[in-house]
Amino acid sequence: MLSGNLAIKTFRHSYVTRTSTKFASAAVSRNTQPIMDHQTQDSKFQYDELFENEIMKKRKDKSYRFFNNINRLAHEYPLAHRAKESDKVTVWCSNDYLALSKNEEVCNAMIKSIEKYGAGAGGTRNIAGHNKLTINLESELATLHKKDAALVFSSCFVANDAVLSLLGQKMPDLVIFSDELNHASMIIGIKHANVTKHIFKHNDLNELEEMLKMYPRSRPKLIAFESVYSMAGSVADISKICDLAEKYGALTFLDEVHAVGLYGPHGAGVAEHCDFEQHRVNGINKLKTVNVMDRVDMITGTLGKSFGTVGGYVAASQRLIDWVRSYAPNFIFTTTLPPSVMAGAATAIRYQRSNIDLRIQQQKHTKYLKDGLRRLDIPVIPNPSHIVPILIGNPDLAKQASDILMNKHKIYVQAINFPTVARGTERLRITPTPGHTDDLSDILLEAIDDIFNELQLPRIKDWERQGGILGIGDSNFVAEPNLWTESQLELTNDDLNPNVKDPVINEVAVSSGIEIE
Amino acid sequence: MLSGNLAIKTFRHSYVTRTSTKFASAAVSRNTQPIMDHQTQDSKFQYDELFENEIMKKRKDKSYRFFNNINRLAHEYPLAHRAKESDKVTVWCSNDYLALSKNEEVCNAMIKSIEKYGAGAGGTRNIAGHNKLTINLESELATLHKKDAALVFSSCFVANDAVLSLLGQKMPDLVIFSDELNHASMIIGIKHANVTKHIFKHNDLNELEEMLKMYPRSRPKLIAFESVYSMAGSVADISKICDLAEKYGALTFLDEVHAVGLYGPHGAGVAEHCDFEQHRVNGINKLKTVNVMDRVDMITGTLGKSFGTVGGYVAASQRLIDWVRSYAPNFIFTTTLPPSVMAGAATAIRYQRSNIDLRIQQQKHTKYLKDGLRRLDIPVIPNPSHIVPILIGNPDLAKQASDILMNKHKIYVQAINFPTVARGTERLRITPTPGHTDDLSDILLEAIDDIFNELQLPRIKDWERQGGILGIGDSNFVAEPNLWTESQLELTNDDLNPNVKDPVINEVAVSSGIEIE
Repeated sequence: MLSGNLAIKTFRHSYVTRTSTKFASAAVSRNTQPIMDHQTQDSKFQYDELFENEIMKKRKDKSYRFFNNINRLAHEYPLAHRAKESDKVTVWCSNDYLALSKNEEVCNAMIKSIEKYGAGAGGTRNIAGHNKLTINLESELATLHKKDAALVFSSCFVANDAVLSLLGQKMPDLVIFSDELNHASMIIGIKHANVTKHIFKHNDLNELEEMLKMYPRSRPKLIAFESVYSMAGSVADISKICDLAEKYGALTFLDEVHAVGLYGPHGAGVAEHCDFEQHRVNGINKLKTVNVMDRVDMITGTLGKSFGTVGGYVAASQRLIDWVRSYAPNFIFTTTLPPSVMAGAATAIRYQRSNIDLRIQQQKHTKYLKDGLRRLDIPVIPNPSHIVPILIGNPDLAKQASDILMNKHKIYVQAINFPTVARGTERLRITPTPGHTDDLSDILLEAIDDIFNELQLPRIKDWERQGGILGIGDSNFVAEPNLWTESQLELTNDDLNPNVKDPVINEVAVSSGIEIE
Repeated sequence: MLSGNLAIKTFRHSYVTRTSTKFASAAVSRNTQPIMDHQTQDSKFQYDELFENEIMKKRKDKSYRFFNNINRLAHEYPLAHRAKESDKVTVWCSNDYLALSKNEEVCNAMIKSIEKYGAGAGGTRNIAGHNKLTINLESELATLHKKDAALVFSSCFVANDAVLSLLGQKMPDLVIFSDELNHASMIIGIKHANVTKHIFKHNDLNELEEMLKMYPRSRPKLIAFESVYSMAGSVADISKICDLAEKYGALTFLDEVHAVGLYGPHGAGVAEHCDFEQHRVNGINKLKTVNVMDRVDMITGTLGKSFGTVGGYVAASQRLIDWVRSYAPNFIFTTTLPPSVMAGAATAIRYQRSNIDLRIQQQKHTKYLKDGLRRLDIPVIPNPSHIVPILIGNPDLAKQASDILMNKHKIYVQAINFPTVARGTERLRITPTPGHTDDLSDILLEAIDDIFNELQLPRIKDWERQGGILGIGDSNFVAEPNLWTESQLELTNDDLNPNVKDPVINEVAVSSGIEIE
């Protein structure tokens, strides 16, 4: 087998190990007596036992997961069939928030691209896997967020992990300030960054500022946060976080995964929503005035929720994108997403940009459902967004509620248990879409009322008696106004700047690399 | 904004930071004077300067990358068009090794699934993103590798990172032994495992054994390696590594990314190839005798190369898969790949299983090309596999060679530079497929001879004068026999067990979770 000078490698193992002293001693003892006599054949580590015990733990604390077999039907939306094709249920918990995964234009774009370019990309971005559909998608994303450039990854989990860990690795002095409710992918990226970190209480900007204050302005810093937190639907004050970032000289890293498609006149997310009117009037053009979306340094998002396909991305300055493109191993060493995914996602972004009515319908259906649940005294974790989290507060009951909804009512709402939410805050998380009409809501409301009776689940008044939880039944809780105002909800597609309809967009040069003289 | 008891979260930030003392002191100083006076407004860290400098470094050492715009045409394979549709080139460096990305059955399976199930999965595996096409693909993968179960990830980068890091996190005493040429994804996974590691010289099993010897048999251990190393084409001795693993009580983790589809009678990889005859005779049935594929604990692979689509997986015991499924955040918190990808990949696996002729054609085309290059005194890094790495040895010249091939000869072979290979070993990496006929090889050979003349690139005799490199021009180098023997290359599809043709396969229960009494 080959060896010897092939050893000169490049993307290197770091030879510094946690027990480098052991390694050194090994090197010394290499030609002497082995430390252990393997003739004794002491028994090997019982790996299977470890795996089995860990699984049993999950079974015991009811966090062992059964995945529901849900086959969402493009032509019978929002229906899906279960294992048997005849066994159909209404899906009320998908993250396909705008139902663009069944959109005809999106599906046709994918099919057309498969017919022309085949099934897969066939390589990494550097080796045969870079193509015009990828450049086009990155250009669409940059245009959407009014940034210079964007870079597509296998998923937003990978995008968050890649960007955050790279920032830490290249800036060992970096200090990261992270909202405690940040998504697992950001937590992992921050862990991999391996720098000083501070975790501030969810949306507590006073605490964040106290932490920022501890460091000189010249020290590199990063504030990592989300716009819409997916499991509770809470929303960050992006503008104030940008103020703090500016004051203390920090970069801002904003995850808009659960907001793109849903907020802003063109679906660029909550950062766009902050300057709604200016963006609406300007259409796809960048604003000439200071605005929140522009102030955020890095925006990450997904192609797998509102944009109906799969994949993730970061949008930022040309320089930052070129840097990530050049250094992030999780970008460099991964096969490009299929041409069909690039084509489908780009089509979805274009489609939703000029269809504000999708966002408005989604909001109206959310409001109808939240109002109905309130009338039934069903506890919904209050929030200003599109997420409808019904609190159950017990893993077993949450699963039972989900199972009864499925089997008795033919409605699919997944029970959300640990580790996705904290123990004791288990919930049914409902996500209306533009196609979840009031008729369907009425059926859902009746079914939920039924399971609350059947399982004797705590209603708002029950939580109130216990002093309230997560803003439910808490007399001191001050509800935030909905992100979408009443007047915004009266807009139509005709109120958008016509330049958002089939715009000619600029190609992002850095997607392929910048030629210089 | 919501805060307070929402704070109870689950997939938690670890509050232990590298500078936890600083955090503690911050807590103390919170209501006292800030450490720094921000009124002084010292200038903030110059982030852009850092990004710019890092990019300039890459430009200076010629490792700055320009991605070639390559649009591989399903109906004119192996042609692709560049930015202009009329500008067509022959692709000679894709990892679509069997050209299944343009296979009609694969493409039709994808299209059919888009028509029925839409563009995207719409959720994570736990929340609305689990479906029959996913279960079916995982069942196909388990059947292919004759393992109990398999689990699909966004990519094999993610699969390697997820599995290796989880093993380390759940077994803090684990010692990992890693081949120095392992892929970036494994290096990163091992880094994230954060346990003791030892890196052994490429394929040096004596060194590996010396390292294994240092620990008691009862200590948990893992040997991480690949079957075919992608950039040099070298191959591991899997059987001997399994012997060592058994002797010292280690788990084996084998990455078959560049081998699936290409080795073994049914394309399960080099592990299957080790017991070629027994597997050929048994078809899809598991062997009743001891065999290498069965001895390997974890096999990871990709759906993005020979299987023509995108994604990665691990195949292993039911227990191990259930454990990874239950604990790996990069699996849990990621949107499922689109139904069309699941359908396309499963179709590709079925198709290639019974079409050994694809593998044999690929091998014959590789041999034809390697023989031709040898006659022209062109330096190819010797190996027993399907990879044809032409050594250039200089990043600038490698890029020039690639550019001339593209612009003058209308042939696309990517220059492989740092960090994918070591500086000084830059190469043109050629990957013939079943469709790269001898006629096309003849054109390629002439073009390569031409660029070697034009750029005065070192030929075998030149390397010989310098004492040889990587087995080229090295009189002491003993070439290994090709993995595919002459007699194996004479087989036809009819020599396979008929049970490989449209087999009925068992559904992997753990894909959805195992029900127990």
